Amino acid sequence: MCETTIQDMKWMRRANWQNNPTSHLSRTTSIDLTEQLEEKVKFMRLSIEGERDSPHHFIGVGDVELLDACTLLAQSLKLREKYMEMSQQRFHVTTKRHLQGSYGPLRASTSAKGTSRVVQHYHASPNGGDCQRELPYNLDYGSGYADIYEPFNCTPPDDLNYTLKLHHGVVKVYKSEAHELKNEPLYEVKSNMKSFVKDYNVVLSLAAHGPVKTFCFKRLCYLESKFNLHILLNEQNETAAQKAVPHRDFYNVRKVDTHIHGTSSFNQKHLLRFIKKKLKKYPHDKVYQAPDGHIMTLQEVFESLNLNAYDLSTDSLDVHADKNTFHRFDKFNQKYNPLGKSMLRDIFLKTNNYIKGRYFAELIKEVAADLEESKYQSTEPRLSIYGNCRGECDRLADWAINNNVVSPNIRFLIQIPRLYDVYKAKNMVSNFEEIIANTFLPIIEASVNPSSNPNLHKFLNMVVGFDSVDDESKADLTMFNSECPTPDQWTSSKNPPYSYYLYFMYANIAVVNMIRRDRGLNTFSFRPHSGEAGSINHLVTSFLLAEGINHGLLLRKAPALQYLFYLCQVTVAMSPLSNNSLFLDYHRNPLPVFFSRGIPVSLSTDDPMQFHYTKEPLMEEYSIASQVWKMTPCDMCELAMNSVLTSGFERKVKQHWLGKNFEREGTAGNDIRQSNVPNIRIAFRHETLCDELTMVCETAQAAVRSRQTSADNST
Amino acid sequence: MCETTIQDMKWMRRANWQNNPTSHLSRTTSIDLTEQLEEKVKFMRLSIEGERDSPHHFIGVGDVELLDACTLLAQSLKLREKYMEMSQQRFHVTTKRHLQGSYGPLRASTSAKGTSRVVQHYHASPNGGDCQRELPYNLDYGSGYADIYEPFNCTPPDDLNYTLKLHHGVVKVYKSEAHELKNEPLYEVKSNMKSFVKDYNVVLSLAAHGPVKTFCFKRLCYLESKFNLHILLNEQNETAAQKAVPHRDFYNVRKVDTHIHGTSSFNQKHLLRFIKKKLKKYPHDKVYQAPDGHIMTLQEVFESLNLNAYDLSTDSLDVHADKNTFHRFDKFNQKYNPLGKSMLRDIFLKTNNYIKGRYFAELIKEVAADLEESKYQSTEPRLSIYGNCRGECDRLADWAINNNVVSPNIRFLIQIPRLYDVYKAKNMVSNFEEIIANTFLPIIEASVNPSSNPNLHKFLNMVVGFDSVDDESKADLTMFNSECPTPDQWTSSKNPPYSYYLYFMYANIAVVNMIRRDRGLNTFSFRPHSGEAGSINHLVTSFLLAEGINHGLLLRKAPALQYLFYLCQVTVAMSPLSNNSLFLDYHRNPLPVFFSRGIPVSLSTDDPMQFHYTKEPLMEEYSIASQVWKMTPCDMCELAMNSVLTSGFERKVKQHWLGKNFEREGTAGNDIRQSNVPNIRIAFRHETLCDELTMVCETAQAAVRSRQTSADNST
Repeated sequence: MCETTIQDMKWMRRANWQNNPTSHLSRTTSIDLTEQLEEKVKFMRLSIEGERDSPHHFIGVGDVELLDACTLLAQSLKLREKYMEMSQQRFHVTTKRHLQGSYGPLRASTSAKGTSRVVQHYHASPNGGDCQRELPYNLDYGSGYADIYEPFNCTPPDDLNYTLKLHHGVVKVYKSEAHELKNEPLYEVKSNMKSFVKDYNVVLSLAAHGPVKTFCFKRLCYLESKFNLHILLNEQNETAAQKAVPHRDFYNVRKVDTHIHGTSSFNQKHLLRFIKKKLKKYPHDKVYQAPDGHIMTLQEVFESLNLNAYDLSTDSLDVHADKNTFHRFDKFNQKYNPLGKSMLRDIFLKTNNYIKGRYFAELIKEVAADLEESKYQSTEPRLSIYGNCRGECDRLADWAINNNVVSPNIRFLIQIPRLYDVYKAKNMVSNFEEIIANTFLPIIEASVNPSSNPNLHKFLNMVVGFDSVDDESKADLTMFNSECPTPDQWTSSKNPPYSYYLYFMYANIAVVNMIRRDRGLNTFSFRPHSGEAGSINHLVTSFLLAEGINHGLLLRKAPALQYLFYLCQVTVAMSPLSNNSLFLDYHRNPLPVFFSRGIPVSLSTDDPMQFHYTKEPLMEEYSIASQVWKMTPCDMCELAMNSVLTSGFERKVKQHWLGKNFEREGTAGNDIRQSNVPNIRIAFRHETLCDELTMVCETAQAAVRSRQTSADNST
Repeated sequence: MCETTIQDMKWMRRANWQNNPTSHLSRTTSIDLTEQLEEKVKFMRLSIEGERDSPHHFIGVGDVELLDACTLLAQSLKLREKYMEMSQQRFHVTTKRHLQGSYGPLRASTSAKGTSRVVQHYHASPNGGDCQRELPYNLDYGSGYADIYEPFNCTPPDDLNYTLKLHHGVVKVYKSEAHELKNEPLYEVKSNMKSFVKDYNVVLSLAAHGPVKTFCFKRLCYLESKFNLHILLNEQNETAAQKAVPHRDFYNVRKVDTHIHGTSSFNQKHLLRFIKKKLKKYPHDKVYQAPDGHIMTLQEVFESLNLNAYDLSTDSLDVHADKNTFHRFDKFNQKYNPLGKSMLRDIFLKTNNYIKGRYFAELIKEVAADLEESKYQSTEPRLSIYGNCRGECDRLADWAINNNVVSPNIRFLIQIPRLYDVYKAKNMVSNFEEIIANTFLPIIEASVNPSSNPNLHKFLNMVVGFDSVDDESKADLTMFNSECPTPDQWTSSKNPPYSYYLYFMYANIAVVNMIRRDRGLNTFSFRPHSGEAGSINHLVTSFLLAEGINHGLLLRKAPALQYLFYLCQVTVAMSPLSNNSLFLDYHRNPLPVFFSRGIPVSLSTDDPMQFHYTKEPLMEEYSIASQVWKMTPCDMCELAMNSVLTSGFERKVKQHWLGKNFEREGTAGNDIRQSNVPNIRIAFRHETLCDELTMVCETAQAAVRSRQTSADNST
């Protein structure tokens, strides 16, 4: 039975679509007449013959196991699709298309012919529309974008006066209180913790399923070898294609620092210079309220520390990670205090302090000025919302608006530290739901009723997503399962588990996004820290709930998850220099392996203050990666392109950076004049992904049919 | 007999001088009363007890072998001392002192007491004087140096009208032709090729001597372990010492790029921007004489290449090393041609072309301006003298003077490519001596008779040394031995071997230096490329003849030589990023091991155009080293200090950078306020070196005594 099923599959034939069957590694020069109008990229392709006839299909995995593995994989892909659609997050269009049964690669000119296999957008949205994040409704400046970016200069929409209510930790939105009484919500997330736990367990068991792990591991090795062979065969052609592009090179392709924390987005020397400048020029600035109520000037602060401007050095500042931070996230966190003094952290690195974050705003604006000057680099710093008191979101928005912290090169993410246990111990909150209320209610309120907090409404125009942060190596003290109390019931002194945090952030972001989409406002992606350390369960959760993740180091220990991340093209913002100081030596970092296998990784700095030395931290990151891992200029431009696609910059901006069709599949979405990535590389990536997806999806369908047949036979 | 000899040795007791005998790893807090005035640095020292009673002394080497090894080692040290003195090059004063029988470390305040163990200069000269290179005679600006550096603004001394004559490839200087006839030279080198071959063979046989290799390998491992233990025990104290220094940190300690080639001393992006700027602003500059005699403008040049300013990118420029240069020095050399066109190399990267090197001068001056702005970085670019025609030195000098290529942050080295075979094949020279004549006669002439070429005389004020360059991985086609014909007889089409080149460069530099020393002019060091690839014989030669070397990678395969380099503190300018592109993957680079063992290595860039990405290539080099090898701020400052000591900047300058006593041994020479290197580190290095030298020299002396005794007994 199995044999028939396998023979039934068409993907193997399709996988060979690109090749002259008589030539093993032929340079394809002839173009299939049926696809006459397609611009098939010419390069040396690898094809595998006889796979169909081999008794051991798919590199050592037997038939039954193959069916099982692909069934489970396809099931997981669909689960992610469901969660992405529910929350208006991007789901990769190639994966989506294959899940719908449309197999094989798409090529450049199909859409021109209007065939049924239209070239689709890179990322499709749930409702057939497209949720590539837009510029805020009234900020569409057309082609002149690059010069004008005024997210605060907008006319907010009318207030809707909906009723907001938290139900077991997730916001529901009602048209009025009457609707609430009838329990007829206008917006709610079609999922609850119990149903999520069920889905989570599906992916979790897949990740631990022996045959699936073997299968995925072999596929990943195959992908890696295939890429290496591709490079051996095509490197010269890729280089030639890059040289032929006028003007464009690695220096002037766009790069986004996709993972960086606002409080350390400048290097140690920059902070030092800033502190010295302030101390010299503005010693009498009143900057700090002492516990006794006395307002101290900057000079008094430094006198109390027995320091003067001249004496300060990066050594005494001591904000740089060193040997002692390796596997010591706690020590690393202490480094955020200049000179080891939390008072200085408060003065210089906080948005909410006696000077209302003025110094910190100036620092961020200096970073922005450097980026604007360099022109081709942009950044997505995280700003913290702790969720331990009301009014925090409002204050953050006031900080940004009042200090005019805005730059065309900057978009913000809101990071929420997982610190419930700390606030609970300090009696700042009584249950977990309060943190959610403090964080999300103001954001929804500002989306529903802009006039309730105009500043927050404006500020959200430049927020592109949410991040969840803390030391992942801390073990969860509670199991994540359906027995967990709901947030309103979570009154334990223990911290909820990682996945619990992520689910409730996700669910509320989903509601926020629904409202904002309907109002024509920008929506938010969920891009948590995941897989930096700790349990691989974190990656199971983020696979389902997050549009992209930061770090993802532990994917190297979870082949099934790694393969899923590949199939769904989940973006991973990696920071090898950060890992090198905290968790994993540079030369053991899996980035080059992930990259070879085709996971859309990008390079990010995480914390320039702690890790970097030069004036250009992101370039330092690229430089080291390129040197240590011997990356080609093509590799580096692909990394840069990945960073743009990963980022939350608006469609208009990305079109300006990558070309107007950047959302399309394969080479149709690539403009080498902008990306400096040759079509050869893009075609290789796209065709390889389509082969894998075709194999998985077709096999899964065949399994369904085979079960159908055997059921029919038995009746 | 041997036992008595060993027991006779005092060094073992001395090696324990620093420790309380009852404590194995004691924190030394009590100060020996007999050394009351000495400021003994407090840190946790490692002492080894019972070594004396062990049947296997010195980590697995038997008594006889120990005596042999130390005898050979001491002999080699003395040979280097001879060659350094003969050529006015620096020989490390600690080594010199131990060779003279004065054992053990020196500490800070001995000189103040005027005891016999005076604190000596870091580098002693042959004549008891000091050959730390001086500022040119009339350029002593006192403390105001940093702002004024005018090497061209000098009154040359009178002409001496000596007679110069080449004898078998080495210049001899006679007071007059009459003296020449009587063969009474005023200046000649007291060595010839035959005697050098003899000395060379001594070191060569030591490098291949089994027991010596074992002994040295064990000592090197011991040194490495000792350093690692030192770090474990003292890292916190070193950090604390650095933090306690006001103002100073890694960013504002002085760093010298000790090995960099002038033609690639800017990064690819810098060159690209320069070319674009010229093409846009000065398209009508006449820049190139075509083979048909037509003078082409810049625009015509680029039109002939079918290129315009906008289209150019670093990809098309193609001057960056890539995967394809690994183990392909030939491909690497081709990368010096922008766009693969030697015409562009000629226009932009040559000192001797139709525009008389104006563009290249402007490029170097832009590099200089960047360095002056950064203030703490200096550089020693190499400029080529090929030696294939007369007038080359004069033209180079004219280029520098006419374009005013001068900066307080720059000193030059002259690099001489080993290309005799190429010139011979082109009939540009008939024998090897002509290359020597073309290179050295003008330099000696300008030193003896400044008015013969005032520009060259002035130019030499800012030259600090000579470098020998080419692909070391090319095998020598001729053995280097005493049968080699002298340069005047070398008419073969084959290239002379590496050691032959080095010996004749050395011998002529020695003569130049004698004259210049006597005239109060600056002298030159010999700092060739050595041990980048090829045979380890190169390192034998450079150990004897060179003050410092560039690369030294192959020391990792030659433990005896590595130990000799350590004992003599021969400086090694390493360029791990260059090696990574050409010869050795970054994470396999021996720099961190050499550094641990105490070889004075420094970081240099070699070719920023080919290897680096950021605007600050030297900082990029430091950053990567620090990140990949997890170096502490103390390590990095020690590397920076090494680079200053390695460099040829004048004593006044080094005093300004490191403190006025920088030439003294041990902590007496260190000023942490300038170097940011804690005395703990300096004391550790000094005491460790003294222990090793004491052991080697005392054992060698004991061996002499023992031979004496056995000779007396047998008579």
